[in-house]
Amino acid sequence: MLSKTGSFTFHIESYVCDFTEKATLTVMTRFLLDAASIHAEQRNFGYNQISNDNVIWVLSRLSVQMEEYPGQNQDLTVETWIEAVSRFSTQRSFCFINQAGKTIGYARTIWAALDMQTRRPIDIPSWRPDMLQYVEPEKQCPIEKMSKIPSVDKRESAMGYTVRYSDIDINKHMNSVRYIEHAINIFDLNVFKERFIRKFEIVYLAEGMFGDKLKLYVQKLSEDECIIDTKKGEESVCRSRIIWK
Amino acid sequence: MLSKTGSFTFHIESYVCDFTEKATLTVMTRFLLDAASIHAEQRNFGYNQISNDNVIWVLSRLSVQMEEYPGQNQDLTVETWIEAVSRFSTQRSFCFINQAGKTIGYARTIWAALDMQTRRPIDIPSWRPDMLQYVEPEKQCPIEKMSKIPSVDKRESAMGYTVRYSDIDINKHMNSVRYIEHAINIFDLNVFKERFIRKFEIVYLAEGMFGDKLKLYVQKLSEDECIIDTKKGEESVCRSRIIWK
Repeated sequence: MLSKTGSFTFHIESYVCDFTEKATLTVMTRFLLDAASIHAEQRNFGYNQISNDNVIWVLSRLSVQMEEYPGQNQDLTVETWIEAVSRFSTQRSFCFINQAGKTIGYARTIWAALDMQTRRPIDIPSWRPDMLQYVEPEKQCPIEKMSKIPSVDKRESAMGYTVRYSDIDINKHMNSVRYIEHAINIFDLNVFKERFIRKFEIVYLAEGMFGDKLKLYVQKLSEDECIIDTKKGEESVCRSRIIWK
Repeated sequence: MLSKTGSFTFHIESYVCDFTEKATLTVMTRFLLDAASIHAEQRNFGYNQISNDNVIWVLSRLSVQMEEYPGQNQDLTVETWIEAVSRFSTQRSFCFINQAGKTIGYARTIWAALDMQTRRPIDIPSWRPDMLQYVEPEKQCPIEKMSKIPSVDKRESAMGYTVRYSDIDINKHMNSVRYIEHAINIFDLNVFKERFIRKFEIVYLAEGMFGDKLKLYVQKLSEDECIIDTKKGEESVCRSRIIWK
C-alpha cells in the first residue's frame, strides 16, 4: 500500500510570480490541486479512474493560509493527505514546505463525488470503501475549519467579467482557480506592494458556464478582511473571504 | 562553452489543457519563453544577469506554428537557439518535439535589448560580443518570417478588458502571454471544438499598464484567417494574426 500522505515538489518559475517576485495565491492553488490529482491517481481514485464509474470529484470548499509565499527559482513541496471521508464528502488537507524545509502554509479542501448523469452526490464510503485505508486522522491541519461565508448585500458591483475560453478547463467547466484569479483581480496593484493574502477561503455554490456574465460584489469587514460574492444574476456562484497580512 | 542549442522538457499537466485535452497556445508560449529564459541564463545573458547592466530583454515579435498540440500527461521538449544577432535585435527560434520524438511545431521570436533608464534599444553586438559565439545560423526555422500585420479599421470592438493584477508579471509589465490569452478569448468555445490555431503571430507595439482599458478589434480576412488589433484609445498596443486549421 502506498503511504497515506503524498509529497510533491514544484519549481517556482518566474512566470508564476507577481511583481513582488513571489508565487501568487492562484499558483499555490494550482499546485495544491495538482498534488491532489496525482495523489488520488496514484491511489486509484483519480479523475481518470473514477470517470469509468461516471463519477467526478467536485471541489466545494477551499481554504489556504500562508505565512509567506515561496520566491522565484525556489522549490516548493506540497504534502497532501485525506483527513476524513464522510458520507457525501472527503476532507483533504495540504501543507506547504519551502526549500529550506520550513512549513510556510496549509490548506484545507472539501470535495464531493458527483454522479455525472444525475449530478447528485455519491455515498463515498459505500462506493469506494478502499479509500478509507488512506485516511490519516492523526495528521491534523492546524488551520481552522471554514466558517460560513455570508452573502454580500448587493450594492455596487466592483467588477464584472464574462466567462471565456481561457476560463474553461479540461472538464468543460469553469476552472475553480479562475474564480480565485478573478476575485483577486478586484484589488489595486498598490495593495500587493504592502500586503499579502494571509488567508483565502472560497465556497463554490453553482457553476459558471461559457458566456456567463458574472458580477463581483465586495463587502469590507475590517481593514484586513473582506468578502467577495461572485454572482450570476441573483445567484451566488461562489463566495470568498480574504484576510490580508 | 555550452552548446548553441538548448533543450528543455516540460510535462503537460491537466491544468494547462483546454477541454480538447491538449495544451493551449498560451501555455505553449509560456513554455517557449521559459525555455528562452533558461537558455539565456545558462549562457550568462539572462534576465538577472543583464539587469546588472540596467538592460532588459523585450519581446517585440512572436510567431508560432503548430501541426498539432501535445496532449495531457505528455512530455514536450522545447529546443531553442539564436538564429541571428543584428544591431538592435536578436532572432531566437524554437522547435517543439513531442514525447514520441516527432516535431510538432516551430516558433520564431524577435527581441530588443532596452536600456532601462532611457528605454532606448542597445547595440547588442557592441554591448555583448560574447553572445555572437552562440549564434547558430545553419539551424534554420522552417516557418516563414513574419509579415507585417496591418491595423484594423476601427468598427465595433469585439471585446474590452481592463489590465488587472493577474496580467502584471514579475517585471511589473503586462505579461506578453496575457495579450495572447485575451486575444484568443474573443472566440466562441465552439470554434475550438472543430479547429485549432495552426499559426499565431503577434507584434508588440506599446505597453499595457495596470488599469488600462484595452479594446480588441477584429478583421476577418478569410474563413481561416483574422487579425486582432488590441488598442488603448487610438494606439495599437499589439496586433495578432490567427490562422485556423
